[in-house]
Amino acid sequence: MGYLLKNCDFVLTWINDELRILRDVDIAIDNGLIISVGKAIEGHLEEINCSNHVVIPGLVNAHTHTPMSLLRGFYDDAELMTWLNKMWIVENELTRDIVSLSSELSIIEMIMSGTTAFIDMYHYPDVVADIASRYGLRAALGPTFIDILKSPTLVENELRNFMSRYGNSSLVRPIINVHSIYTVGKDTLLRIRDLSHELDLPIQIHVSETRDEVYEAKRKYGVFPVEYLNSLGLISSKSQLIHLGWVTSWELSIIAKANARVTHAPTSNMKLATAGHFPMRELMEMGVIVTLGTDGPASNNSLDMFREMKMAVLLQRHSYWDVSIKAMHAFRAATVNGYRLLGPRGGCLGNGCVADLVLLDLGSPRLQPIRDDNILSNIVYSADGSDVDIVIVNGRIIYDKSRDYQVLRERARRIGERLNDFTRKFL
Amino acid sequence: MGYLLKNCDFVLTWINDELRILRDVDIAIDNGLIISVGKAIEGHLEEINCSNHVVIPGLVNAHTHTPMSLLRGFYDDAELMTWLNKMWIVENELTRDIVSLSSELSIIEMIMSGTTAFIDMYHYPDVVADIASRYGLRAALGPTFIDILKSPTLVENELRNFMSRYGNSSLVRPIINVHSIYTVGKDTLLRIRDLSHELDLPIQIHVSETRDEVYEAKRKYGVFPVEYLNSLGLISSKSQLIHLGWVTSWELSIIAKANARVTHAPTSNMKLATAGHFPMRELMEMGVIVTLGTDGPASNNSLDMFREMKMAVLLQRHSYWDVSIKAMHAFRAATVNGYRLLGPRGGCLGNGCVADLVLLDLGSPRLQPIRDDNILSNIVYSADGSDVDIVIVNGRIIYDKSRDYQVLRERARRIGERLNDFTRKFL
Repeated sequence: MGYLLKNCDFVLTWINDELRILRDVDIAIDNGLIISVGKAIEGHLEEINCSNHVVIPGLVNAHTHTPMSLLRGFYDDAELMTWLNKMWIVENELTRDIVSLSSELSIIEMIMSGTTAFIDMYHYPDVVADIASRYGLRAALGPTFIDILKSPTLVENELRNFMSRYGNSSLVRPIINVHSIYTVGKDTLLRIRDLSHELDLPIQIHVSETRDEVYEAKRKYGVFPVEYLNSLGLISSKSQLIHLGWVTSWELSIIAKANARVTHAPTSNMKLATAGHFPMRELMEMGVIVTLGTDGPASNNSLDMFREMKMAVLLQRHSYWDVSIKAMHAFRAATVNGYRLLGPRGGCLGNGCVADLVLLDLGSPRLQPIRDDNILSNIVYSADGSDVDIVIVNGRIIYDKSRDYQVLRERARRIGERLNDFTRKFL
Repeated sequence: MGYLLKNCDFVLTWINDELRILRDVDIAIDNGLIISVGKAIEGHLEEINCSNHVVIPGLVNAHTHTPMSLLRGFYDDAELMTWLNKMWIVENELTRDIVSLSSELSIIEMIMSGTTAFIDMYHYPDVVADIASRYGLRAALGPTFIDILKSPTLVENELRNFMSRYGNSSLVRPIINVHSIYTVGKDTLLRIRDLSHELDLPIQIHVSETRDEVYEAKRKYGVFPVEYLNSLGLISSKSQLIHLGWVTSWELSIIAKANARVTHAPTSNMKLATAGHFPMRELMEMGVIVTLGTDGPASNNSLDMFREMKMAVLLQRHSYWDVSIKAMHAFRAATVNGYRLLGPRGGCLGNGCVADLVLLDLGSPRLQPIRDDNILSNIVYSADGSDVDIVIVNGRIIYDKSRDYQVLRERARRIGERLNDFTRKFL
């Protein structure tokens, strides 16, 4: 099954870490990969007319909690720990059915807004993985270690089962989720390190999200969170560190030296008033791979990666009092860097690059005027998910607005009603 | 010409400064006003089916520079003064035709995203006013005093002409625009004060936007910008002060005592890296009417007031390190407070309230699940302008997606091409 994207007005792609803007080209896709890019390509592939469209690499939501659409707008006005405690009350009573419905709702929202892959942390990851696969979306996820709610032995068993079920999937990538150093004890952290080596799995963890977390670590362990994790052997090229709003400057070299990956979640940090500053410029200068995530729909409350890209630039400029962070940096974080973190070669258009692409409709008034020199700006600062027309993952069209728009909306509406039946008792 | 909005799923309105959420009601509109709200209203009015919709008061964009869609994405990466100087190079060569096209583009974007009124500062305000009137949008605007570009006598003449032309318009409200204290001299400011008294016109001015502006005022005049304006008699209930990112705490009492109005423009401030902090909580506590604006499409680069509401809450939470600013506060700033500033009684649903309303489609997956207790949250944190279905201003439908969507998009695209012909020579 292949496609030929004909006459794309604009194509944005990364070549050797440089953003390139191509005009009026065709893109041939076969067997899940991009096989050719250029003028007037011919071939026995199904043609898709891409005039009046810009083709961009798929957006990677590098950190979310997909099923939390259940709790969208449920409790907006609290700081992180108060908020988490409220979330946990509801989450204690979650069922596979509810997780299935709420992750489906988020997955619908994600594909409709141009997300081609997401990295998830939540209960029942097998349920989320199945829904993602059914919709054709890439996902990296796995069971979550969180000692205060669940025994680590239980999570380890879940993880081994998850591995054996999804270890060979083309769309699902198992990872080890670790909630945080304040909800997971030292013994469990050491066990996680060993599991990561044994099973060759990446680790995703919330780190240095609040000032309290950082102070508490210093008080309890005499060191800051990244130092603490490093002392346990948990900072490596397999680690994905989320938030880092209160990371110290000297911890940055630990991250850079280990080639650990980092994820910025600006909207969620602002909404939960965690303050602090994710040092994006320093991290980039040190060569660290910076990615971008919306965090869950209960703390954002959107899963629109276009909005998140804009938010990242704005918050960084506000914090640095300068304009050193530009649209390009957010676009890189959300595309090619997301793929570096995930595994498959994406964000590019060469041979062997995965065919994870988004076709944006150029007709929206908010995107005018359009030229080579402002197309990226318009995508990052003016577009939103509603401009997405077609989403291709692994060479397959997983969303086509002209075909799927009404069906998905009706499905989402029905899911919403069923979720309300569940949450009403907590109101 | 009247309408009966039948079976509105949700209606959000302000009653005595309290937000009320009504369910399953009808709204009768006649002669530009709301005449009745309740269950099962009958009447000889044209019916609009509002099931699956939420009706909200129209959004007021309290500060923008409408024709700057011309410069969207033209120059994104500079701080305010460098950026302004670049804008001025292009603006020196503006024609009425270009201003007409670029303001039309912005007005299309605004009505498609639920804005019912805007307050504008730019060259050729008569051109902007005519386009706004043609599209049926409310606008408050007028010539801009900016000594470094234009003689004040010229601007005064323009103002008197503008007054005589639009003084009795139902949609256009003349105001006196003053660029800033760093582009307008003391003599001109005194003249503006007298003109404001003589013509009974409000004054809009950028104040304390950057640290440099504040330091420079202190150095030059021995006082801070609001103190300086106050010493010239320019802080009164007729003043609308924009930005205030670097206002001092003691200037807030001057603002509150004078009953001056203020406008927060978070996205633009962040994009231009002006830093600082608009003290929204203190201003609200002192009873000051806080409003919200996108600023121009060259420094935002969007005119979507839904996105701006979210941005305001997020930036405020980030600055205060707490969650005291809530969705309700941004919604109030963008609706009822905007109307307080503009003049007509809006943001409400009682007899005599202007029929400026927006119908939002509840079908979008990003808005699920929906309940009484989270509908406001979903509007502020999850919705965007694309959820707008119908916009009513002064009792007239000025945008109906099912009727106008394609036509407006095509018009915007054509305008974009013509604007590019103009800007290309500056690239």
